[in-house]
Amino acid sequence: MTVAVVMAGGRGERLWPLSRSYRPKQFVSWKGNSFFRATVDRITPVVGAENIYVVTQKKYKELALKQAPFIPPSNVIIEPQGKNTAPCIGLAAVIISTLKSPEEIMIVLPADHFIGDERTFQKLIRFACRLASDDFLVTLGITPLYPNTGYGYIHYGESHQKEGEMEAFKVLNFTEKPDLETARKYLKEGTYLWNSGIFVWKAKVILEEIEKYMPDLYRGLMKIKEKIGTPQEKEVASKVFKNLESISIDYGVMEKTDRALVIPADMKWSDVGSWVALEEILEKDEQGNVVLNKHLGIDTQNCIIWTRKPVVTLGVKNLVVVEADDVIFLMPKSHNQRVRSVIEALKRQEEFKKLL
Amino acid sequence: MTVAVVMAGGRGERLWPLSRSYRPKQFVSWKGNSFFRATVDRITPVVGAENIYVVTQKKYKELALKQAPFIPPSNVIIEPQGKNTAPCIGLAAVIISTLKSPEEIMIVLPADHFIGDERTFQKLIRFACRLASDDFLVTLGITPLYPNTGYGYIHYGESHQKEGEMEAFKVLNFTEKPDLETARKYLKEGTYLWNSGIFVWKAKVILEEIEKYMPDLYRGLMKIKEKIGTPQEKEVASKVFKNLESISIDYGVMEKTDRALVIPADMKWSDVGSWVALEEILEKDEQGNVVLNKHLGIDTQNCIIWTRKPVVTLGVKNLVVVEADDVIFLMPKSHNQRVRSVIEALKRQEEFKKLL
Repeated sequence: MTVAVVMAGGRGERLWPLSRSYRPKQFVSWKGNSFFRATVDRITPVVGAENIYVVTQKKYKELALKQAPFIPPSNVIIEPQGKNTAPCIGLAAVIISTLKSPEEIMIVLPADHFIGDERTFQKLIRFACRLASDDFLVTLGITPLYPNTGYGYIHYGESHQKEGEMEAFKVLNFTEKPDLETARKYLKEGTYLWNSGIFVWKAKVILEEIEKYMPDLYRGLMKIKEKIGTPQEKEVASKVFKNLESISIDYGVMEKTDRALVIPADMKWSDVGSWVALEEILEKDEQGNVVLNKHLGIDTQNCIIWTRKPVVTLGVKNLVVVEADDVIFLMPKSHNQRVRSVIEALKRQEEFKKLL
Repeated sequence: MTVAVVMAGGRGERLWPLSRSYRPKQFVSWKGNSFFRATVDRITPVVGAENIYVVTQKKYKELALKQAPFIPPSNVIIEPQGKNTAPCIGLAAVIISTLKSPEEIMIVLPADHFIGDERTFQKLIRFACRLASDDFLVTLGITPLYPNTGYGYIHYGESHQKEGEMEAFKVLNFTEKPDLETARKYLKEGTYLWNSGIFVWKAKVILEEIEKYMPDLYRGLMKIKEKIGTPQEKEVASKVFKNLESISIDYGVMEKTDRALVIPADMKWSDVGSWVALEEILEKDEQGNVVLNKHLGIDTQNCIIWTRKPVVTLGVKNLVVVEADDVIFLMPKSHNQRVRSVIEALKRQEEFKKLL
């Protein structure tokens, strides 16, 4: 009755050089486990391993199954190309609805986030499943801790609380990453939550909404549906995806539908979307440094140091220091949002392309 | 008639973590060669390999012979402990004077310096040998290029030039590292040279001057002389060295004697005494960065990047970045003179002692 759909097709470029073209962020080892594997482990108690689906690119299928070998290989859904979350979720919905049942509840999870409080996560997900069984489109909205300008926000309205139940609210709209002033306003108003990208709904309900609000996508999905299980499935899916618009399910459906609910979630969450985001999930030492490995700091404050080798710093402040297998990366924290410019620069120089 | 004495007992701590307790700076690989080996190679055409002596600590003897296997093992003189240059040179002088001849001319060379213009070096050394054969104590003084506050200076007086010969001057005195204002004054006056630590003299002449100006050292050396070639040599040398004052030959002898001459030398020299000193001997790229390995810099200026792995930097300025086998070291260039504080900090923490 309930399946998990782990979206593992992204690249996570802003965490370069930890994330790489051959090993995107979700597959990066994080304290012995990858983000992907942690995501799978976190949902397994809720749905069972045999009900976990993974949507990813063909080139990452092997890596995903290696990291979570208990997932049935037939549960890996190949996304012909990355087109943001709406096509990805639509594809999963049409396959699950066809091969299992349109009544299946899908728990849609990004594969590259961090959740510190797994028990709360599981409790909230089970509650979301109950709401989804009443044909709602449910999302978790993270209780904001500070005016983060790197996250999208969900503006919520009236309560949808039944007696004895946890809180849920009607979704008013999704917002893009705000500037600092706007983010402060959101926190002050108290009716905004961080957009977690976690969704729970019935396969048939999300397909109904896609039909209503994203008719082009729906038509494409129906073409794929005709060929599911046939030798033409892959070819048709490729053709369909080539012509799809890159759009998130948030904007494509959730903002438009009147069936969206949001559950406030306080579960030590981070999207780990950049180097500075590590400060949200790792403890700082007395000098405000976030350190993975051994570090000896003399007059060193507020650095983020993610290395294999021990690091010694003298008089260094606000610096991000990353060591991967084959490269060392350094930037001031103030340049956190510019990591993609590094990717662009690497692409332009033949001798550095292998660092992509 | 002429021997070279390569002083290879120092530690070069300010170049940590390139220099280490098990591999001091002189033995560090520098573009495929160590500073020590380069020093030996540079003097071999002048004296011949069989006339090269090395003074070092017992623990480095093997490393020295491995790096310069053509040096006769019996030419390695063991310094019982580091006591600066006067005891080291005195020991070499007494051994060479006893085993070879008091008339031998000794070319004394620090093992850890860089000299870019080897032909000029050899020409000047040969000239120094001619002056030394007239019983002068000769040193090379580097023509100062800018008011460096990390070097000692030699103040010189009247010319000692004979017709058709190169320039040499009477030494007035040696000065400690000056402050910037004083260094600027020195350059303006034009009668100051950088102290290179390179000396040329007869064994018997330096011993005469040690007898005159450092009688305690002389008495110790005579005790060692009695035992040279006997089973007691090592034990006596250890005892003698234990009680010797740590003092440089510059202050112990050269400043006091009236037989000191200095030859101005313009030969792309650096003592490579600190990370920032690398700027004196390595080319900068267009952004003012000194880089050993591959580096991709975006908005990156005036850094010194000495690593094994490629380095990518975004928005980084005036930073020293060093990667050794087992540690990464970072500091702003402004902290260049504080590297010894790192050594002290490492000593205090058990888990970091292996990085010494």
